[in-house]
Amino acid sequence: MPESYEEFRSWSPRQRSGILRGPDGRLRALLYAQQFDRALLEQLVALAERIRSAEPEGAFRAALSRALRGRAAALYFQQPSTRTFVSFSLAAQGIGMVTEEIRSPERASLVKGETTLDTLLTLAELSDCVILRHDDPEAIERFAWEIHDRGLPTRLVNAGSGADQHPTQALLDIATLISRFDLSRTDPPLTVGIVGDLRRARTARSLSYLLALYPTVRQVFIAPPDLAMGRDLVTALEERGVTLVETTEFDAVIEELDAVYLTRMQDEYGETSETVRALFGNYRLSSERAARLRPHACVLHPLPRREELPIELDRDPRTRHWEAVHRGRFLRMALLLHMFGKDTTDLS
Amino acid sequence: MPESYEEFRSWSPRQRSGILRGPDGRLRALLYAQQFDRALLEQLVALAERIRSAEPEGAFRAALSRALRGRAAALYFQQPSTRTFVSFSLAAQGIGMVTEEIRSPERASLVKGETTLDTLLTLAELSDCVILRHDDPEAIERFAWEIHDRGLPTRLVNAGSGADQHPTQALLDIATLISRFDLSRTDPPLTVGIVGDLRRARTARSLSYLLALYPTVRQVFIAPPDLAMGRDLVTALEERGVTLVETTEFDAVIEELDAVYLTRMQDEYGETSETVRALFGNYRLSSERAARLRPHACVLHPLPRREELPIELDRDPRTRHWEAVHRGRFLRMALLLHMFGKDTTDLS
Amino acid sequence: MPESYEEFRSWSPRQRSGILRGPDGRLRALLYAQQFDRALLEQLVALAERIRSAEPEGAFRAALSRALRGRAAALYFQQPSTRTFVSFSLAAQGIGMVTEEIRSPERASLVKGETTLDTLLTLAELSDCVILRHDDPEAIERFAWEIHDRGLPTRLVNAGSGADQHPTQALLDIATLISRFDLSRTDPPLTVGIVGDLRRARTARSLSYLLALYPTVRQVFIAPPDLAMGRDLVTALEERGVTLVETTEFDAVIEELDAVYLTRMQDEYGETSETVRALFGNYRLSSERAARLRPHACVLHPLPRREELPIELDRDPRTRHWEAVHRGRFLRMALLLHMFGKDTTDLS
Repeated sequence: MPESYEEFRSWSPRQRSGILRGPDGRLRALLYAQQFDRALLEQLVALAERIRSAEPEGAFRAALSRALRGRAAALYFQQPSTRTFVSFSLAAQGIGMVTEEIRSPERASLVKGETTLDTLLTLAELSDCVILRHDDPEAIERFAWEIHDRGLPTRLVNAGSGADQHPTQALLDIATLISRFDLSRTDPPLTVGIVGDLRRARTARSLSYLLALYPTVRQVFIAPPDLAMGRDLVTALEERGVTLVETTEFDAVIEELDAVYLTRMQDEYGETSETVRALFGNYRLSSERAARLRPHACVLHPLPRREELPIELDRDPRTRHWEAVHRGRFLRMALLLHMFGKDTTDLS
Repeated sequence: MPESYEEFRSWSPRQRSGILRGPDGRLRALLYAQQFDRALLEQLVALAERIRSAEPEGAFRAALSRALRGRAAALYFQQPSTRTFVSFSLAAQGIGMVTEEIRSPERASLVKGETTLDTLLTLAELSDCVILRHDDPEAIERFAWEIHDRGLPTRLVNAGSGADQHPTQALLDIATLISRFDLSRTDPPLTVGIVGDLRRARTARSLSYLLALYPTVRQVFIAPPDLAMGRDLVTALEERGVTLVETTEFDAVIEELDAVYLTRMQDEYGETSETVRALFGNYRLSSERAARLRPHACVLHPLPRREELPIELDRDPRTRHWEAVHRGRFLRMALLLHMFGKDTTDLS
Repeated sequence: MPESYEEFRSWSPRQRSGILRGPDGRLRALLYAQQFDRALLEQLVALAERIRSAEPEGAFRAALSRALRGRAAALYFQQPSTRTFVSFSLAAQGIGMVTEEIRSPERASLVKGETTLDTLLTLAELSDCVILRHDDPEAIERFAWEIHDRGLPTRLVNAGSGADQHPTQALLDIATLISRFDLSRTDPPLTVGIVGDLRRARTARSLSYLLALYPTVRQVFIAPPDLAMGRDLVTALEERGVTLVETTEFDAVIEELDAVYLTRMQDEYGETSETVRALFGNYRLSSERAARLRPHACVLHPLPRREELPIELDRDPRTRHWEAVHRGRFLRMALLLHMFGKDTTDLS
């Protein structure tokens, strides 16, 4: 057990995961995609699909609406959000939680000079679960440590931590892949291309970690030179024996891909040079590229999109980004049910 | 069936209404007041009054609170709102829906460069019903088309479309008139004055369309020259045989009116000349004008108000604008129950 | 009964409290801490502790979640807030109310030129209870008068009225003191130090009024010369026979105190001179002062804090400010249950 935040910080995400878990082995704080194992991932995906296919006004949804009655969730989003914010809020309410939110910290007590940590500790005292998005990954790590160190029972979920991770977005992306492919197949192995600003796309990082739970999946990182995937992740994947290809040439590999995960340029995390901007057109799914894509391929994008995925392709049945959005509410329900020990309850 | 958005746009609101309806004939997207017929209008008004008169803590409200459990509503308000926003949100929750909202699109994913359409499609994927206010009437029409064309089951409600329509505000205004008068009477016919900035008051336009369901009602449009009611609406009413009077002289007709519907100057939709500004004082219900108003008359105003309806008149029993506000929550409950096929369920 | 707002204003808070009460003697509008008597205070504290210690997923919380089903609460916060806002919203939802909020009045209908009073009257028509924070104490008093004068059934709760009062914050502070001490003890009497910007700290004013319900409690007001407690409150306490000490020397009295209530500088209510700013360091609980504090002492702070209460002291078991925050949700549930006559219902 680390004795201080500094010691906690010196540990790797994998080492940290022990104290992010409750005595029952369940996730208490979800910070990193590396905290999932395959069993938990597949269990959440299955539960989410069961909720998704249930009649909106049927008995199962009614049981769900009582599952966490008496519990409260607080959402703190220091960065803008539509999909993650709305789906988390609706998910929490849909399983019976009451919710409240801070979406513009500048209008909260902060203007009276409160620190972010004090605001977060307030939410930890007032609710049973804090769902947090912040542009600084350390903000969530520090908060996770304080919850642990103060012995608070509050759960914590990372809803986007700067350019680092976005584990729940990765959940709904991999769930969409699982619904289309056998990720364990070996002959041939599934090939997933992850395309764009990999250096700064937290969704891509988290998805890559989840895909690594299926070591047979061939991951192809496709990015302009300055936006290549972080070496920390590449090293971690190599240590796990994942087959990894890195390239700057989308056009050279597009016909190999069973799935394509597109990302936008993440300008909010620093300047992007004019050279890279000019190059980024090579990482769009133009209609010419779409024509070369395999007929059974699956196209995903975490959204919001710019030119990477033209709206005209929404009608191409290979694109599944809206289907992934639809899964968001249900996977977040499944995750919260798990964290509060209600995923195995008889919900029917 | 139109094949494209352009073709859909070339149709009249009445022609469009077919594809805004579900296979069961119920409203799936409510965009225009013209989509109501008298039977549906009166059914919603009756249900709303039943909810309104129910004991807040009684069995009927408890049954209502479970009616749409499992369903989610998303509110997207690109323009400011108090009454419509709060009443829709409380209405949806009051019939068991979970809700989330985007009230300041500039703080949502938009800042990452997302189009309004992508944000709306996200809400359509995450919820069962989108309640939308936008300063551009085309935004809601385009979204309605996309929902239809993509085969999404999401319902859509217009909560104010620019200077064009505000059908649910009209519902609560006409409900207040129905509670006071027999709109079908002929001897003498009911005379309703609609006063102020008729060119740009969406609430006046929607109310006029609803009143046209009672062709015996005499509608008197009272507006300064530059702010007269749009010719499209005048033509539509004439085609339906509505008795219509247009005048610029409030004082000349005030004693004929059974009901007065006041509106403010809608400056947000373009400049208003100094001349018109100066004239607008003639369209206020000053205490002198109030003294000339019939003893049984009914005064309404969609609010917010400026000088048209001085606060001192709130104590005049002929003013019913606050009573109309009170109806807002219950009529919106009735509408949502209808759209989801729960208005005929045994709710007791 | 006053005949006009002006007459109502000329009455003292104690005189006003008659018309802030319903025919059943319950609070209908809570504006001032002086509206509590000791019986009601202790009843609310006991109910809140019962809710606080209940199993989150147990039967009592489930019964609570149905207690005010069918009722709606509207929150209008014209000043920033985290703690009060989030806890009121979660409290109202936790007892079954549906809720909606206006947190940035400038984005609501105000921008169309609506007065604050019209916005508040709208909330009064749309909901059963308005929870209001405003920087002008008269805004809430005027609104309370209008609710009374118009005969509206809507309840009203003061969630912070400028530099005047914050009665629900005081509830959770005194509840924390009650959990630690016998406030009625006489030998020796309990000594509570209230420290800082007493002139402008509404939380300190409300707490002092609540402590006055226990006339044996010795209140020690510790403030820099320019920030001394208002004479109105001092006079009111003296009239009730409260033992009161006023000093500018925190260090001179620190060892006498059983409890210390710290406050920050309330700069939002006017300029603070450089001299006073420089002096304010004498009203912090530095670690040197903490070392001199009695071993059994209890330290509170309404938060947000600046330097008055260093975060390092959070681990000192004498500080109870986070415990007080935790009580906020439950005391606000108890208060709302009382106001709607549901505190004596069988909730088990």
